[in-house]
Amino acid sequence: MSDDTGEGEATGTVHLVGSGPGDPELLTVKAKRLLETADVVLHDKLPGPEIIGMIPEAKREDVGKRAGGEWTPQEYTNRRLVELAREGKDVVRLKGGDPTVFGRGGEELVHLARHGVPVEIVPGITSAVAGPAAAGIPVTHRDHASSVSFVTGHEDPTKAESAVDWAALAATGGTIVVLMGVGKLPDYTAALREAGMDPETPVALIERATWPGQQVATGTLDSIVSARDAAGIEPPAITVIGDVAATRADVLEFLVGA
Amino acid sequence: MSDDTGEGEATGTVHLVGSGPGDPELLTVKAKRLLETADVVLHDKLPGPEIIGMIPEAKREDVGKRAGGEWTPQEYTNRRLVELAREGKDVVRLKGGDPTVFGRGGEELVHLARHGVPVEIVPGITSAVAGPAAAGIPVTHRDHASSVSFVTGHEDPTKAESAVDWAALAATGGTIVVLMGVGKLPDYTAALREAGMDPETPVALIERATWPGQQVATGTLDSIVSARDAAGIEPPAITVIGDVAATRADVLEFLVGA
Repeated sequence: MSDDTGEGEATGTVHLVGSGPGDPELLTVKAKRLLETADVVLHDKLPGPEIIGMIPEAKREDVGKRAGGEWTPQEYTNRRLVELAREGKDVVRLKGGDPTVFGRGGEELVHLARHGVPVEIVPGITSAVAGPAAAGIPVTHRDHASSVSFVTGHEDPTKAESAVDWAALAATGGTIVVLMGVGKLPDYTAALREAGMDPETPVALIERATWPGQQVATGTLDSIVSARDAAGIEPPAITVIGDVAATRADVLEFLVGA
Repeated sequence: MSDDTGEGEATGTVHLVGSGPGDPELLTVKAKRLLETADVVLHDKLPGPEIIGMIPEAKREDVGKRAGGEWTPQEYTNRRLVELAREGKDVVRLKGGDPTVFGRGGEELVHLARHGVPVEIVPGITSAVAGPAAAGIPVTHRDHASSVSFVTGHEDPTKAESAVDWAALAATGGTIVVLMGVGKLPDYTAALREAGMDPETPVALIERATWPGQQVATGTLDSIVSARDAAGIEPPAITVIGDVAATRADVLEFLVGA
């Protein structure tokens, strides 16, 4: 299945690997092994400084922000992954959190399979779960959250209008977790209030969850924008909206590592 | 913070640890370390046979199904965790997937903090993400899933009526992942069709994701019940509903480990 897609030598495998939220101990055993054995690791900044620092410089390729503040186009990353695999390399594409949760891992997966490159998904702990947990917040609770929804606050800018139906999310009655939602916090908290969500609904913002310098701000749907500004919360951060966000206050005194 | 809550000796810590979906290599580095160093590990059956088999028998306590088919009451588990911590033990409460995603970990967290027991959450990879990934399905996609919602098909039986608003979930337009939803598959697929979801929406069922004997069935909102029966899918399984479920067919030929 490989010789006819490459240059005569066996095609290498691309492992789409999730790094988890940033704490190196929250890497999976498999991710750690693959980082050690891979020939090359393509990464951006989201895995965080500690995990990126574990990868020998000689095998790192940064496909994140480039000099001048521009992003490497997804097309370049897709092409580079195929090229390296066709050279017979064992390639890790390392992504923050989980590769299939808002990571464009799905696009890379389909691109690689279409080009005949063997591809493996190695899931990681999504920050959408680990961020709240690091702040003492379970995303579901038997009594007051029968569902949890993840959305991104940072939508594809080429889309004409918001693809996220905030009113439908509010109507689920479950917890809402927003990834990359610091900048647009005023917009979607307003949308949720307009959809009829109680303005006293608890909200928490967790910046750099599990990284050195983790910071948490709490408030309500009404007050969280002020709380964000007072605490100086900056990206990357996770927003948790729902009754479960109030759990933090109940457990903080005895929470280890928070 | 400990002497006044116990019997004069230092209170031990309880680590609420997620085991991930079942593959021992998808344990986090931290979970593996804690399983090795803990004095005692309370677990049920959900972490799966391979991971439970890694724990020395002398330190295992099974708080899952008991002889006769009854479940250990949650109150017993809560009480036992406090008791062991007050004996000064370093305790792991091992849960399948992530401890805060439908695992009742939130309840244990609050119970422990209320009783003055130091408690740490160690996130694991939720099967809601890893199950679909193991079948070649990313739960989000930039072009056709701007959100993903997790619900349980196995609701608290003491609730008078379904707390899950299937119509609202359908209205989000995002991927829906149902945990423990084999038995009630006919009910909620019907509810989603009644809510106006396209009967041709792709659906996949993944049984024992990442365990030996993983099995996948695919179909549509209309056909998945027959597909479940034809394949003989049994619990535990994950249901993925949404356009992303069709990705499996596109990538299966080159998917490693599926």
